[in-house]
Amino acid sequence: MTAQRPMRVLVWGENHHEKHDEIPQRIYPDTMHGTIAAGLRELLGDGAVVETATLDDPEHGLSEERLADTDVLLWWGHMRHDAVDDEVVERVHRHVLGGMGFIPLHSAHFSKVFIRLMGTTCSLRWRQGDDRELVWTVAPTHPIAQGVPHPLVIPMQEMYGEFFDVPAPDELVFVSSFSGGEVFRSGMTFSRGHGRIFYFSPGDQDYPVYHQPEIRRVLANAVGWAFQDRPRQAPQITMHHVGEFETPREWDGSLR
Amino acid sequence: MTAQRPMRVLVWGENHHEKHDEIPQRIYPDTMHGTIAAGLRELLGDGAVVETATLDDPEHGLSEERLADTDVLLWWGHMRHDAVDDEVVERVHRHVLGGMGFIPLHSAHFSKVFIRLMGTTCSLRWRQGDDRELVWTVAPTHPIAQGVPHPLVIPMQEMYGEFFDVPAPDELVFVSSFSGGEVFRSGMTFSRGHGRIFYFSPGDQDYPVYHQPEIRRVLANAVGWAFQDRPRQAPQITMHHVGEFETPREWDGSLR
Amino acid sequence: MTAQRPMRVLVWGENHHEKHDEIPQRIYPDTMHGTIAAGLRELLGDGAVVETATLDDPEHGLSEERLADTDVLLWWGHMRHDAVDDEVVERVHRHVLGGMGFIPLHSAHFSKVFIRLMGTTCSLRWRQGDDRELVWTVAPTHPIAQGVPHPLVIPMQEMYGEFFDVPAPDELVFVSSFSGGEVFRSGMTFSRGHGRIFYFSPGDQDYPVYHQPEIRRVLANAVGWAFQDRPRQAPQITMHHVGEFETPREWDGSLR
Amino acid sequence: MTAQRPMRVLVWGENHHEKHDEIPQRIYPDTMHGTIAAGLRELLGDGAVVETATLDDPEHGLSEERLADTDVLLWWGHMRHDAVDDEVVERVHRHVLGGMGFIPLHSAHFSKVFIRLMGTTCSLRWRQGDDRELVWTVAPTHPIAQGVPHPLVIPMQEMYGEFFDVPAPDELVFVSSFSGGEVFRSGMTFSRGHGRIFYFSPGDQDYPVYHQPEIRRVLANAVGWAFQDRPRQAPQITMHHVGEFETPREWDGSLR
Repeated sequence: MTAQRPMRVLVWGENHHEKHDEIPQRIYPDTMHGTIAAGLRELLGDGAVVETATLDDPEHGLSEERLADTDVLLWWGHMRHDAVDDEVVERVHRHVLGGMGFIPLHSAHFSKVFIRLMGTTCSLRWRQGDDRELVWTVAPTHPIAQGVPHPLVIPMQEMYGEFFDVPAPDELVFVSSFSGGEVFRSGMTFSRGHGRIFYFSPGDQDYPVYHQPEIRRVLANAVGWAFQDRPRQAPQITMHHVGEFETPREWDGSLR
Repeated sequence: MTAQRPMRVLVWGENHHEKHDEIPQRIYPDTMHGTIAAGLRELLGDGAVVETATLDDPEHGLSEERLADTDVLLWWGHMRHDAVDDEVVERVHRHVLGGMGFIPLHSAHFSKVFIRLMGTTCSLRWRQGDDRELVWTVAPTHPIAQGVPHPLVIPMQEMYGEFFDVPAPDELVFVSSFSGGEVFRSGMTFSRGHGRIFYFSPGDQDYPVYHQPEIRRVLANAVGWAFQDRPRQAPQITMHHVGEFETPREWDGSLR
Repeated sequence: MTAQRPMRVLVWGENHHEKHDEIPQRIYPDTMHGTIAAGLRELLGDGAVVETATLDDPEHGLSEERLADTDVLLWWGHMRHDAVDDEVVERVHRHVLGGMGFIPLHSAHFSKVFIRLMGTTCSLRWRQGDDRELVWTVAPTHPIAQGVPHPLVIPMQEMYGEFFDVPAPDELVFVSSFSGGEVFRSGMTFSRGHGRIFYFSPGDQDYPVYHQPEIRRVLANAVGWAFQDRPRQAPQITMHHVGEFETPREWDGSLR
Repeated sequence: MTAQRPMRVLVWGENHHEKHDEIPQRIYPDTMHGTIAAGLRELLGDGAVVETATLDDPEHGLSEERLADTDVLLWWGHMRHDAVDDEVVERVHRHVLGGMGFIPLHSAHFSKVFIRLMGTTCSLRWRQGDDRELVWTVAPTHPIAQGVPHPLVIPMQEMYGEFFDVPAPDELVFVSSFSGGEVFRSGMTFSRGHGRIFYFSPGDQDYPVYHQPEIRRVLANAVGWAFQDRPRQAPQITMHHVGEFETPREWDGSLR
């Protein structure tokens, strides 16, 4: 096998519920981003270096240097989307287009970065009703679905329902049902520029979803899928003018 | 508006349950294909000439001439897939590739024609359990979804569940949930050759689904979408050898 | 056939080259937007009411009322993208998500509205070199390709080449080659929110492309495809909270 | 990094031109399948065990046991498609649906297996005219495109042109142009059942394409992409009847 450098993974958390709300504190004593990061470390082992950053850090922990050193960024936000600085949003957006993997989770469907990448409202139906969520695989050949039970059962979860206003995904990997009868395209891939994006809806501050081994498996798979071992591309914001194409390689037909 | 000739629509029915089983006879006294055809006539009016054909007819009612005069073929079969003559299967397949619209319904996922068009097993999970089916629209801009409630409610229906072994569709229009918690990609479009295909899973011999106005709306929309007003193409079974491309149109730049 | 109201079509032009540059003035004495509009009127007849608007008009001719009365908006811009008011951009974006058809042409790949809808840089390669462009159909069942020659020949045209940084389209309809050997995905559809988008690259201020009958055919087809006869949707910018789903329709199984 | 077993790769060759025609013998003294296999061994190293099989072998070298031990099958055929036994075709088809990677090359677009998997005619335009082919990447995030020049230049090659009658691919990776002005979707992925398919058109018996390092890079990437490290699935040819879904995992909400 070809040796491969460890993936550099950054789990970003808004860190709001963890400071203010009792239920999330009880369910996620190590914070949500901390719990997600621990799951990735457990499954990816030496294959990844996993760190965390939060809204509270300087530049939200997302400086130009930090992003340049990040292969895959996971994002959890909910109550404080508006508090994310527009300059940081522009920066993350640019790095995704340049090749950084991006994995928005659950309520991050309304994060500024995701909305900007999608170009749509990203709105959906929801209900806090202790629904059981069943996550069904509809793309069994997809790397993100490997080792994931069919269905993956989440005993209690917030309901997210269609119509979810995002572009048709490149690949629809998971579709969920909820006790109330709703359905949701819960796992979708999108390529944008040179970057790969996986939106995954399960996970909420009020339910222990990120402790489930099956969910951790999905997230570890997603990191591996979103990772690209090549230099970050500089997104072109002007057109690329080219001269007449020069054939750089010739064959004189000599073998014939 | 441009005047358009009426669409020539053919509803094909296996006509087995209608002859042998009591419940279907009570629910569909005019047969399933007859009921489907009546719904189309009601909604499409002068825009379509709707006829029916069955397995019992000579050549199953699908002679070369009949197919050549058909713009859109709807197909309902269940118990007698194997009884469909392979020559007729080849013929229908060829006409779909040549531009005839094709709308397989429910258990027609296992019809020989559909399997041949998909190239996969077309298998799925199922349960006869009086589930309630909710049909949700995930492509609200699609012509087939126009005027369809969100969700469309089918009070009782056979359950069809994922994984449904078909290729990823060109467009995913509807996703259903069932009382048991299963999900199903219940409305999908596929283009094959010069023909347009819409698979729609609701509808069963034991439930009055084809009497529902909302279901009739979907089927009428689907016929309109699958219809193409142009001559049937002859599918090429050999490659098309071409000489050096001759530019058929020149501009001398004289306006400059 | 169901009677249908005429489509309300608006062709928007930047109107810069028409005022300042000699070649465009000679090729398009009636302006580019005027020429495009004339082609649509010719082909769509009573089926459409076609108007024009330009950057110079108050609110660029794109007031809230005007957009509310527009079914399909075509957009040609090149040198003055930055001059388009951000409030108008937001407004057009909102109407597209609400269901208005949108057809950006050629250099409008860099228009603010298109970039916002795509979420990517929308950059590409280009060369002003009097290339011959051949437009090949790769989706022969698509309504936009009906009646379009294969290939459609543009004797001279600016070269646009890959990589074109847009999301993978819902449907790839046309692929072009250029004399220099480049290729370009020249006709692509995208659904965003409740709106349908068709990007079409042929057409430039220095070549008489919009006078070609085949190009006019594509544009008329595209208008028909992007048109949706239903009320404009208000894009939701907040999530839609729903209570427990209430089955609105019951069947007591009485036919059985 | 997780240790991974070597991929078991089988390169299948029709081996007809190698026995009968002078030019292919001069260009491919080690046969075409031998040359392709050598390129894979060079690039994949210990990561793969690469073997070859031909039409002449018993059961064409594709016994049930051999296929069960194959992770990815590459296929080159041209003149002898009809000589491939239907039983073997059925067997290969079944293994692809069960998870075996499948990479049909060039004229294998007309192989029985590929036609069966696609469900269409798989016809195309062609011309033997010493065209220069340029292979452009339109999906830069795709693993198969990593390390591939943009464009990849093939100095002389048979022309394959659109319309190529296959279903819309899951992912369009490469688009080629030819000197004559034609275009071709030259690299496309398809998932069918549990298997991953990559069709790649460059490569011909009369040109030294499979000696080019860039082409070898594409093929090695494609093998890695098509490989899935999991047990072969038995394709279901009957529906899977399921009872009422039993929630296998409960959470009593105790953390709350």
